[in-house]
Amino acid sequence: MHYSDLVSQIKAKQSFLCVGLDIDEQKLPHHLKGTPNGVVDFAKAIIEATQPYAVSYKVNTAFFEARGVKGWEQLAEIIGLLNKHSGAPTFNIADAKRGDIGNTSNEYAKAFFEALPFDAITVAPYMGSDSISPFLKYPGKWAISLALTSNQGALDFQMQQLANGKFLFEEVLATTATWGTTENLMFVAGATRAEHIAKVRAAVPNHFLLVPGVGAQGGSLADVWNYGANENVGLLVNASRSILYASSGTDFAEAASIEAQLLQQEMAGYLAQMG
Amino acid sequence: MHYSDLVSQIKAKQSFLCVGLDIDEQKLPHHLKGTPNGVVDFAKAIIEATQPYAVSYKVNTAFFEARGVKGWEQLAEIIGLLNKHSGAPTFNIADAKRGDIGNTSNEYAKAFFEALPFDAITVAPYMGSDSISPFLKYPGKWAISLALTSNQGALDFQMQQLANGKFLFEEVLATTATWGTTENLMFVAGATRAEHIAKVRAAVPNHFLLVPGVGAQGGSLADVWNYGANENVGLLVNASRSILYASSGTDFAEAASIEAQLLQQEMAGYLAQMG
Repeated sequence: MHYSDLVSQIKAKQSFLCVGLDIDEQKLPHHLKGTPNGVVDFAKAIIEATQPYAVSYKVNTAFFEARGVKGWEQLAEIIGLLNKHSGAPTFNIADAKRGDIGNTSNEYAKAFFEALPFDAITVAPYMGSDSISPFLKYPGKWAISLALTSNQGALDFQMQQLANGKFLFEEVLATTATWGTTENLMFVAGATRAEHIAKVRAAVPNHFLLVPGVGAQGGSLADVWNYGANENVGLLVNASRSILYASSGTDFAEAASIEAQLLQQEMAGYLAQMG
Repeated sequence: MHYSDLVSQIKAKQSFLCVGLDIDEQKLPHHLKGTPNGVVDFAKAIIEATQPYAVSYKVNTAFFEARGVKGWEQLAEIIGLLNKHSGAPTFNIADAKRGDIGNTSNEYAKAFFEALPFDAITVAPYMGSDSISPFLKYPGKWAISLALTSNQGALDFQMQQLANGKFLFEEVLATTATWGTTENLMFVAGATRAEHIAKVRAAVPNHFLLVPGVGAQGGSLADVWNYGANENVGLLVNASRSILYASSGTDFAEAASIEAQLLQQEMAGYLAQMG
């Protein structure tokens, strides 16, 4: 999906919501737990219930890899569902945090852009340019580099101050931005440090930011909007657990739909301010 | 595998060689290319041919993920082969470069320590403590954190100087070492910057180092030994392409065996110096 199409979808749905499919088999609704296709049935129902309100889905690969070959089969089924659901096209992200030397990152790009046809993959920047560049060679596909994450461990290295006066995450933003464009590169900026989103936005004024941490992790959507929006919105805000597990009963999809709609309505309010 | 068992294997085989199974379907010997079980047949022959000379195997997950579900099935078959081959037990590494927020790293640990029973997994440190700690809770299992890698991109962030005077990779070593012990944590130190291996060794005198970059990437085994060995050897040196693709003919396994033996003999020479 190209930049202009993503912005169009955001305007059409009045939403910059990304629904995170971090599907934990143990947390499935009671009637689906332990059934042969429970994970995929759950994903299908969540996608159908939330797609009027979401422009993006983010599939956390770890939760599938934990189930071995069966999990990888589920991942293949779910990207199939995401690419074929009845609503408008969505921006589908493999949240995989990959990154390795160039010849290996090439293989990861094949994995998540070809074998599993996602629109984007999250990548870890520690190994530098050749670990990210292979993901930037596919027209219409995106790398989403970690910059400042939403977890406690973000303080360990990302917030280290460099000799040049910057925090490491600011250096990562400034340097990584030179390897791609606003059309193939986004950055992860966690909502649990909303005041730092302003620093992220200052470093990369024109890039989209993928913002996890709203919902179960405690971040505020209002803060994310205030500190992070740019003239083309420039935000995809992810919520996972608060939507997926809104109910553990047979009404889980309806409950997920309501949670997604609440976020979408708040987003529509902010978008209306832009005019 | 516990630390003492790994050291015993190194002494018994007079080798600290790790064979990297970065299996690229396009590089298979002609008679295996395109056959239904070519990848696994190739891996099986390489493992049998090299296990007298190798104490460790490192499976690069990217090369399997690039083949989708089929690749993940091959990965499952190969860890099965590694855990059951006819030689002494080997230290089997998933070279997966994973790392995410705590609840997600938990799932990656399940993926590579339970669903696929590897002894160790490589992890990326950018997200900090909670991204690595979940891998340290399994007795006899190991996290191998990136520190200083063998690629050009290592210069971008790993070699950034911090306000405290250290390079980032030195900070990563010092901080990450506090999260685990020499019994569950190793570090990646690339052989293509041998002079920097001395800095790595100074920061973590007692930990094992996993050293890629010897062979196709151009690093020198003598330098690695001189700068990196400690009193318990403390090194696993990886070679991948130079062994796997030593011949593209039907003699590929014999050629791989010869390459592995050459490295083992050089290693035995260094080990003899230790007495």
